[in-house]
Amino acid sequence: MLEKLKEEVFKANMELPKRGLVLYTWGNVSGIDREKGLVVIKPSGVEYDELKAEDMVVVDLDGKVVEGNLRPSSDTDTHIELYKAFKDIGGVVHTHSEWATIFAQAGKGVPAFGTTHGDYFYGEIPCTRAMTAEEIKGRYEKETGKVIVETFKDLNPIEISAVLVKQHGPFTWGKDPAEAVYHSVVLEQVAKMAYYTMSLKKNSDPMDQNLLDKHFLRKHGANAYYGQSK
Amino acid sequence: MLEKLKEEVFKANMELPKRGLVLYTWGNVSGIDREKGLVVIKPSGVEYDELKAEDMVVVDLDGKVVEGNLRPSSDTDTHIELYKAFKDIGGVVHTHSEWATIFAQAGKGVPAFGTTHGDYFYGEIPCTRAMTAEEIKGRYEKETGKVIVETFKDLNPIEISAVLVKQHGPFTWGKDPAEAVYHSVVLEQVAKMAYYTMSLKKNSDPMDQNLLDKHFLRKHGANAYYGQSK
Amino acid sequence: MLEKLKEEVFKANMELPKRGLVLYTWGNVSGIDREKGLVVIKPSGVEYDELKAEDMVVVDLDGKVVEGNLRPSSDTDTHIELYKAFKDIGGVVHTHSEWATIFAQAGKGVPAFGTTHGDYFYGEIPCTRAMTAEEIKGRYEKETGKVIVETFKDLNPIEISAVLVKQHGPFTWGKDPAEAVYHSVVLEQVAKMAYYTMSLKKNSDPMDQNLLDKHFLRKHGANAYYGQSK
Amino acid sequence: MLEKLKEEVFKANMELPKRGLVLYTWGNVSGIDREKGLVVIKPSGVEYDELKAEDMVVVDLDGKVVEGNLRPSSDTDTHIELYKAFKDIGGVVHTHSEWATIFAQAGKGVPAFGTTHGDYFYGEIPCTRAMTAEEIKGRYEKETGKVIVETFKDLNPIEISAVLVKQHGPFTWGKDPAEAVYHSVVLEQVAKMAYYTMSLKKNSDPMDQNLLDKHFLRKHGANAYYGQSK
Repeated sequence: MLEKLKEEVFKANMELPKRGLVLYTWGNVSGIDREKGLVVIKPSGVEYDELKAEDMVVVDLDGKVVEGNLRPSSDTDTHIELYKAFKDIGGVVHTHSEWATIFAQAGKGVPAFGTTHGDYFYGEIPCTRAMTAEEIKGRYEKETGKVIVETFKDLNPIEISAVLVKQHGPFTWGKDPAEAVYHSVVLEQVAKMAYYTMSLKKNSDPMDQNLLDKHFLRKHGANAYYGQSK
Repeated sequence: MLEKLKEEVFKANMELPKRGLVLYTWGNVSGIDREKGLVVIKPSGVEYDELKAEDMVVVDLDGKVVEGNLRPSSDTDTHIELYKAFKDIGGVVHTHSEWATIFAQAGKGVPAFGTTHGDYFYGEIPCTRAMTAEEIKGRYEKETGKVIVETFKDLNPIEISAVLVKQHGPFTWGKDPAEAVYHSVVLEQVAKMAYYTMSLKKNSDPMDQNLLDKHFLRKHGANAYYGQSK
Repeated sequence: MLEKLKEEVFKANMELPKRGLVLYTWGNVSGIDREKGLVVIKPSGVEYDELKAEDMVVVDLDGKVVEGNLRPSSDTDTHIELYKAFKDIGGVVHTHSEWATIFAQAGKGVPAFGTTHGDYFYGEIPCTRAMTAEEIKGRYEKETGKVIVETFKDLNPIEISAVLVKQHGPFTWGKDPAEAVYHSVVLEQVAKMAYYTMSLKKNSDPMDQNLLDKHFLRKHGANAYYGQSK
Repeated sequence: MLEKLKEEVFKANMELPKRGLVLYTWGNVSGIDREKGLVVIKPSGVEYDELKAEDMVVVDLDGKVVEGNLRPSSDTDTHIELYKAFKDIGGVVHTHSEWATIFAQAGKGVPAFGTTHGDYFYGEIPCTRAMTAEEIKGRYEKETGKVIVETFKDLNPIEISAVLVKQHGPFTWGKDPAEAVYHSVVLEQVAKMAYYTMSLKKNSDPMDQNLLDKHFLRKHGANAYYGQSK
């Protein structure tokens, strides 16, 4: 079942090591079929060079395995929380990519310092609050998703398609698994440049709001003019 | 038309990902035929590994497409402003290469700290002023070109063939598209080394003026003696 | 003799340059056959691209060569001390990988700042004390092993499978040579991220203890649920 | 003439881009035939991927071309000064490798912080004084050599086989061209690690003298025991 989505999710997973975002098995991508209410996700702890499209696991929105011989990613419950709360997203990625993880470890968001950031993310990429002992000792992966959703209570997940989980690492999402990976790659690059911008100029202000509007909106929304018309 | 220039511009564009200066579609190179007053430039938002020489778009100096089925780069108007103001240049490059962009985000020029810099750039590589709300909301890409030209009102664009647009990233130029790319590569390297020089020695002075003269002039101008005689 | 272990040790050694952990001949991996009390180790100063499985040297626990035409690694005595003190380990690695070495040169341990660290190491990776003049002038490599063992007098080497030798570099270990190399790769990554975390947020606290418990124990021990069941 | 030395010098030059020490044509290696008093050096400004062994230029110790159709490296006079002053060296390398150049631009030597450094360099790698206006305007490349030699008036160039020319970059040397390149690679690595060591621990002391003695002397001199006996 869901062979096309499995192929998409598989390819998106394989993009992670190719882009230098993961070491060993440290990342996972999923995609959702909204009509069927089913999520396709990478199996847990399988090496990328042994991974095949048919290894992808199908789970329902309660996290129960519907199809597949392997255990789904240990982060599956986090993905599911995001799909439930963010109705317009079609793919989710989790990595420990180094620059995004550095900000997560420092408990800081990634400010928007330039148009590279503004072309993709409409403002600062937030970092969650620390999780409580109860959340950590409870259904940890599900609670991780909930703390992300809480972080976005006043933010639009379509405009800011990434988050840093404190002392952990990034999650990103997009309209499909491929776009979610694209956002992971961009996040890593803008996090790196933000670090060095802050180091080169102490107390750097975020970028001009007009410039942010200009760049985000020339790529997104009704009046976008970047790229080729579809 | 302009098949030879299209080939040059295409090859120069392909050098950007090869040299690690761009992610995805984040860069563009153009070249000009001064006699015909036509500019050849990369199409907007096309992946490098799908790009072909015949995809290059020909525009006139008003930015109107003269030949080509694809939209030209969204930065075309900036390139045109540079060609109009800097009469001796034949190629222009725009990237978001990371170290140059870091300086642009911090709003700082790249000081000349050593002979690597002095071999190619005759002094600090300047950063533009911030653009005004009117400029950003108006013909933004054209205004970007104008603010670059303003930055060079007392500088010689042949001696300093690069600029940082504040909160955005670098533009470089050269006698042809290939040299413009060469300058982007060198800019990235000297920006990286400048960052760490400033970090290793707070309040570093720029390099000795005699040494800068020596290195720039042994490579450029009538008395150059680097390389093979042509 | 010990052909299978030689092959394992050889392959683990070849992983070091592939993972970017060594320049030239700057690293060595060994494995132990606990029943026979014999250690298989890389020969000293042989280039990786000339190395063959049959070049591996077999030594006993006094460091005497039992088989092999080449001299064993100059660090052999350090490996032996670790095997003697840490009864449950099967492989040892020494490298001068850059980030681990930077912490060793600064004389600092690598704090646990996030779940990437906590997934593999159950707390800070310690740095040894400086060695005394007597230790350095005596049986230096053996004394290096002893100072590592001293550093672990209140630590569990299975829970923290890495150490930094002050002003020198890292040693790691594992249940076999491959896992010991895996720990070297992870150490390098978490050391790099720890450096930048400390730089981004001065006086960063180590990660929450509950979160460390959660991550270490979901991968290790009786209740682990990461990966596939074996 | 000197075909074997040309081959050695050619191969050593080709190692520079392979090891990531040069961009474009920014480096040169030479070798000397002490009996004939002739130096073989890379031609000026030739791309590495077009370079052939027969392009190597032969010059005498006055810098006059004895054989070759191309101009020798513009840095030839610096190499010659080193060969004249340091009688036991057989190869010289100049690059603008980034970390060594960063220290040169900051005008700082590279302190010995750990055994990686001590295995190859017997103490701090010095940075020259700034050159005077007269030296820069005079026979600049020859004067560059002289200021290096002046820097070593109380140092042994066999024990410390590298120098940083202030606001310029590194020169290294060795018993032959290959060893000179090896020292350039090691210099780059130890410079990088020294930078981060200093950043991680302000006012870091150099390494313990006993440890430096131990490591340098276990690899060099009569009592060396690293590697295989020859």
